[in-house]
Amino acid sequence: MIKDFVPLAQMDDLVFGGWDIYPDTAYEAAVKAKVLDPVLLEKVKDALLAVRPMPAVFEQEYVKRIQGPNVKTKGSKMDKAEALIEDIESFRKTNNCARLVMIWCGSTEVFHTSSAVHQTLEQFEQGLRSSDPDIAPSQIYAYASLKCGVPFANGAPNLTQDIPALLSLARDREIPICGKDFKTGQTFMKTLIAPGLKARMLGVEGWFSTNILGNRDGEVLDDPGSFKTKEETKLSVLDQILQPHLYPDLYKDLFHAVRINYYPPRGGAKEGWDNIDIFGWLGYPMQIKIDFLCRDSILAAPLVLDLVLFLDLAQRAGMKGIQEWLSFYFKAPITAQGLYPEHDIFIQLMKLKNTLRWMRGEELITHLGLEYYD
Amino acid sequence: MIKDFVPLAQMDDLVFGGWDIYPDTAYEAAVKAKVLDPVLLEKVKDALLAVRPMPAVFEQEYVKRIQGPNVKTKGSKMDKAEALIEDIESFRKTNNCARLVMIWCGSTEVFHTSSAVHQTLEQFEQGLRSSDPDIAPSQIYAYASLKCGVPFANGAPNLTQDIPALLSLARDREIPICGKDFKTGQTFMKTLIAPGLKARMLGVEGWFSTNILGNRDGEVLDDPGSFKTKEETKLSVLDQILQPHLYPDLYKDLFHAVRINYYPPRGGAKEGWDNIDIFGWLGYPMQIKIDFLCRDSILAAPLVLDLVLFLDLAQRAGMKGIQEWLSFYFKAPITAQGLYPEHDIFIQLMKLKNTLRWMRGEELITHLGLEYYD
Amino acid sequence: MIKDFVPLAQMDDLVFGGWDIYPDTAYEAAVKAKVLDPVLLEKVKDALLAVRPMPAVFEQEYVKRIQGPNVKTKGSKMDKAEALIEDIESFRKTNNCARLVMIWCGSTEVFHTSSAVHQTLEQFEQGLRSSDPDIAPSQIYAYASLKCGVPFANGAPNLTQDIPALLSLARDREIPICGKDFKTGQTFMKTLIAPGLKARMLGVEGWFSTNILGNRDGEVLDDPGSFKTKEETKLSVLDQILQPHLYPDLYKDLFHAVRINYYPPRGGAKEGWDNIDIFGWLGYPMQIKIDFLCRDSILAAPLVLDLVLFLDLAQRAGMKGIQEWLSFYFKAPITAQGLYPEHDIFIQLMKLKNTLRWMRGEELITHLGLEYYD
Amino acid sequence: MIKDFVPLAQMDDLVFGGWDIYPDTAYEAAVKAKVLDPVLLEKVKDALLAVRPMPAVFEQEYVKRIQGPNVKTKGSKMDKAEALIEDIESFRKTNNCARLVMIWCGSTEVFHTSSAVHQTLEQFEQGLRSSDPDIAPSQIYAYASLKCGVPFANGAPNLTQDIPALLSLARDREIPICGKDFKTGQTFMKTLIAPGLKARMLGVEGWFSTNILGNRDGEVLDDPGSFKTKEETKLSVLDQILQPHLYPDLYKDLFHAVRINYYPPRGGAKEGWDNIDIFGWLGYPMQIKIDFLCRDSILAAPLVLDLVLFLDLAQRAGMKGIQEWLSFYFKAPITAQGLYPEHDIFIQLMKLKNTLRWMRGEELITHLGLEYYD
Repeated sequence: MIKDFVPLAQMDDLVFGGWDIYPDTAYEAAVKAKVLDPVLLEKVKDALLAVRPMPAVFEQEYVKRIQGPNVKTKGSKMDKAEALIEDIESFRKTNNCARLVMIWCGSTEVFHTSSAVHQTLEQFEQGLRSSDPDIAPSQIYAYASLKCGVPFANGAPNLTQDIPALLSLARDREIPICGKDFKTGQTFMKTLIAPGLKARMLGVEGWFSTNILGNRDGEVLDDPGSFKTKEETKLSVLDQILQPHLYPDLYKDLFHAVRINYYPPRGGAKEGWDNIDIFGWLGYPMQIKIDFLCRDSILAAPLVLDLVLFLDLAQRAGMKGIQEWLSFYFKAPITAQGLYPEHDIFIQLMKLKNTLRWMRGEELITHLGLEYYD
Repeated sequence: MIKDFVPLAQMDDLVFGGWDIYPDTAYEAAVKAKVLDPVLLEKVKDALLAVRPMPAVFEQEYVKRIQGPNVKTKGSKMDKAEALIEDIESFRKTNNCARLVMIWCGSTEVFHTSSAVHQTLEQFEQGLRSSDPDIAPSQIYAYASLKCGVPFANGAPNLTQDIPALLSLARDREIPICGKDFKTGQTFMKTLIAPGLKARMLGVEGWFSTNILGNRDGEVLDDPGSFKTKEETKLSVLDQILQPHLYPDLYKDLFHAVRINYYPPRGGAKEGWDNIDIFGWLGYPMQIKIDFLCRDSILAAPLVLDLVLFLDLAQRAGMKGIQEWLSFYFKAPITAQGLYPEHDIFIQLMKLKNTLRWMRGEELITHLGLEYYD
Repeated sequence: MIKDFVPLAQMDDLVFGGWDIYPDTAYEAAVKAKVLDPVLLEKVKDALLAVRPMPAVFEQEYVKRIQGPNVKTKGSKMDKAEALIEDIESFRKTNNCARLVMIWCGSTEVFHTSSAVHQTLEQFEQGLRSSDPDIAPSQIYAYASLKCGVPFANGAPNLTQDIPALLSLARDREIPICGKDFKTGQTFMKTLIAPGLKARMLGVEGWFSTNILGNRDGEVLDDPGSFKTKEETKLSVLDQILQPHLYPDLYKDLFHAVRINYYPPRGGAKEGWDNIDIFGWLGYPMQIKIDFLCRDSILAAPLVLDLVLFLDLAQRAGMKGIQEWLSFYFKAPITAQGLYPEHDIFIQLMKLKNTLRWMRGEELITHLGLEYYD
Repeated sequence: MIKDFVPLAQMDDLVFGGWDIYPDTAYEAAVKAKVLDPVLLEKVKDALLAVRPMPAVFEQEYVKRIQGPNVKTKGSKMDKAEALIEDIESFRKTNNCARLVMIWCGSTEVFHTSSAVHQTLEQFEQGLRSSDPDIAPSQIYAYASLKCGVPFANGAPNLTQDIPALLSLARDREIPICGKDFKTGQTFMKTLIAPGLKARMLGVEGWFSTNILGNRDGEVLDDPGSFKTKEETKLSVLDQILQPHLYPDLYKDLFHAVRINYYPPRGGAKEGWDNIDIFGWLGYPMQIKIDFLCRDSILAAPLVLDLVLFLDLAQRAGMKGIQEWLSFYFKAPITAQGLYPEHDIFIQLMKLKNTLRWMRGEELITHLGLEYYD
């Protein structure tokens, strides 16, 4: 058990808090989401009722399909950042927290790329003061988190902390960060299957992935701008795994398409359907179809908890900046400039395990097994 | 490229030969199998016509559903072993071969377990002389191969060389061997998916795997005795990967069923359908369905070639006995007594790669990547 | 609405009773079956608790995989028939019922065919007295039902009332009967798809149907004898629909296989997977795959209710013997000797509707629509 | 056999010709389409080489994604109509044809609705002379066809002849017409399944249909304007079949979505995947998934031929205007104003069969079968 191997925080010591554009308590939000069984929810009703969201930083321009009343409206973006910092410090004090971790679990923002305002901390802070439209709400959260010395993870595909200004802030302040976009359903499966096809040198001619889901995530992603952000991270995984530059005959012409369809009858019980057109020896075509009847939140929730524990561990271990060993949890792992992300989930897992072994000073796993040939 | 990294035999230097209960040349057999395109077959007609099978050692008791005229009928099992040895040496001389490798690509024999006659080489050879019914045809081939100093791999799930008598013969003569049962279609997929589920600590309540295929393999496996042999290797993979003894809450009650259905309309274009009942956080159930429209021979042929090259390499490298690093290719890797086989295809691949690196004296892969946290 | 069109019994006037080899009340049985939501069950708890099964007529030889304590053990098969008759008359009196209907919802009995004892009522009654092993428990129920003048339907694929002795008893006593084997999941889908393929003259080369289910039905059908009975009715539907004698090029070589797999993780949430190999113009192959995630009891329960109402209607309308117009509900509709059953669900539905129209003296539906060309 | 029942034209008497924006002969076009086997194509090479397309009437505004050089460029839309009429009469004379039929097999045009220019023949001809942008190329073909007294069918979902001006022209000239949009793959399946669900009173909460295809059709439908036209006909079928106004509890809230994805790896081997969320007794949810690996042209070609023969038959039988009995072939059958189309494929087939019986003066089919209850 990992918890016996490295000194993780105790579950009983955790306290939860957050921001939301809707004023519903965690209990009310869970009842509306219809993911958890009502009988089960009743058992933790009191604990959930106690989690009342703080007013959120929100901009309609960044998330088109939803709106809510529980938002901070006053002042510049810097004023909002400072309000968040105050929220954080007040939460820390009220709950008597020794350490904090922040995880972005909000909606996918519309696609935007790094611009001038994102280059240096100075430019970024100037942008906050002038309410620069290029600064997204999620970036205000990341800034506030880092200013408070709190490790930050991004569970959505937004640009957020993946900009020079915030990456250098994290590094200078020696704060661990990681992201982007939790790898839970279809992309999780994709990063299992693709390494396997590559291992056997099976070619891939096409990969078509479609999803139906009916929760708020599906609603937000029905907006082309938000979908574009998501599409980028969902499309990115195959190239790095399959290495078409090394195996052009097998992977150069791969046609990869990803679709997300808002389909209310399903609620949060997302279904991902993939068709993979592969070819084997002599080019003979074969097909793999995968139908994944999953549950978005059930798959994502444990990842959030793992990240809280591991980011906290990383900070105590003095591991600052980008936590590449936590790539295991993300569709689009943030990397240092000029490096490429690792997407193969088995390499990611070995990275994670060997990093934990290295922290403890243990021998690393290589699976050599030479004892067979003595 | 592996071929640039270690000194493999050249493709142009290979010569093929074999035994079959049917007298058809490789060309005629290929035409009947309808796996390869007729236009393609015509292009290699002459080369295939030249491959005429030698008369086979066969016993109806071991393979119930097929029979053919091209068989060795005279004498005891030892006489047949000697006839095979003569075939091998004659093939070596005629083709001027420097080195040989033998791969069992024959039908799945009925289920049988190791008995007294399989314990020592002495007992085994006595059994050959007395035509002991417990000695299967595939074991006579394995014996002949090893007596000629020829590395041997078993592509079927039969017991074959996985008995003390032949394992010790291989070790004493310093000959590499490996097996059993090529991992190509459904089980290949299973050993991709299962490690992924385990990596995310997703529980598995049930795994149902069914196949439809219409080639001779499907016909042979329509016999319950042959299917039992196959079922054993197909069922074995999940336990080792999921480790229910370590994670009883997740995997102890897994109900695993495998079916193979003879379905002539499909010919060799096998289809494997899996339903996996998994559960995530708080026990919420989810389902994965995988439909693999594959081609048995197209997936298996490159494995045969890889094994020829790697067994030859292993022999030159002085690696004798069980080749655990070639587990990558098998559903039921043979292991030394008391050890368990590795089924996770990614660990198998790392084993294979690190073994090649170790042969070359290179540093082993650990995926640590500490440069991130300098 | 059909209920406004013909004078059906009122729902509020129905009273339910039955026999079971387990002594559980309907409430306890429903709780164990885990088909209905516990919250829902609580709402009808009292009504279900009141339904306590009468001791059943049972023979282990006819249903191998289950056994229960609530059975009639005394005397000959005739004694048991008389005990059932007493049960029926006592139920009628206690509940003050004007009319009764009996539906067989028990397990599938092992395969057996009509023999001498089934030929005439005289032989059958002699067989009851001598406890002839060829008389199945379900036949004792059917006999008791008919002797009491009660219409009888058979929801399982057993031979039951489909024997000359009981068919003539029904006819002589002017009692409506129907059967066999409720058409609910996979076969229901098959009788939708097959007529459509035929309508478009698409050929069928193979049809492979497999099921996984984990309820008591799955457990009983895990016995080869019971499965054989089921297989017969499941296999029979395609031939009549596709008419291979009229369209040999399209359907003569159809390879049809049906499998049922006991798979406990699923409980009553049966899943049926079909692969259909079809071919179109110039013989080009195409495939249809259907995955039906259904619920056995949820699909079957309304059929039971419909049959109760329609059999009661038929009896009042003077329609005696085999009710061919109720073929809509069955996988293997009983037919008069020498006739073949209709399996096309759309023809079955038209039969049902036109029969109701005919009862009312209305014009029959032909879908001609000539008004278009006036 | 229908051909023995009514006097259809003989296959050997048919001659084929057409227009295309590409100058390729039928042979070259077939080679590029890669639908038919090269070996087969060679056998009919000469016949196909002889079919050289006449220059087409084309407008980029109506089909955005493709363009070709073989087009009529001169003059007004009326000039183009007259050029088509000349083509038709010249084809008739050259090939010595007794009778002609025209079928639109061209691309799907962008969505447009009926406007002023489509209301009367006078307005329409005025529009042709003034090259009104509301007149689509397919409408110029339909006009030319009808002016020549040639029956016309529309295999695409375009508005085309479904406008008052052309419907009245057909009726006045006593020419049969029919359309729109061949019902071949996914919609064909949908009109099998939906009537079956309705027959059993199974509710439908959602129906998600997606397609992947890579032929020119897929390319054209990648344009949102063309897709909109297609989406309309594909979405229309469920409402009429399920009758939500009569069964609001079962069908009123049905969420129906249709997607088409251009996916080049597949070529013409279209794959349609459907997920259907249904509910049964007490509202319990169930799911049906259908994966149809079809071939667009292989399914469509025989429909074209049937329509040629039946339209010719209809004309000889004096059946003018809309041929409702041919609804069987179309996704969106054209109807007389104020009437709704029939989509249930089994009712459509009965209509077709009973219309043929009525032509011959035979008794109509009702499936009553009263002989059972004599």
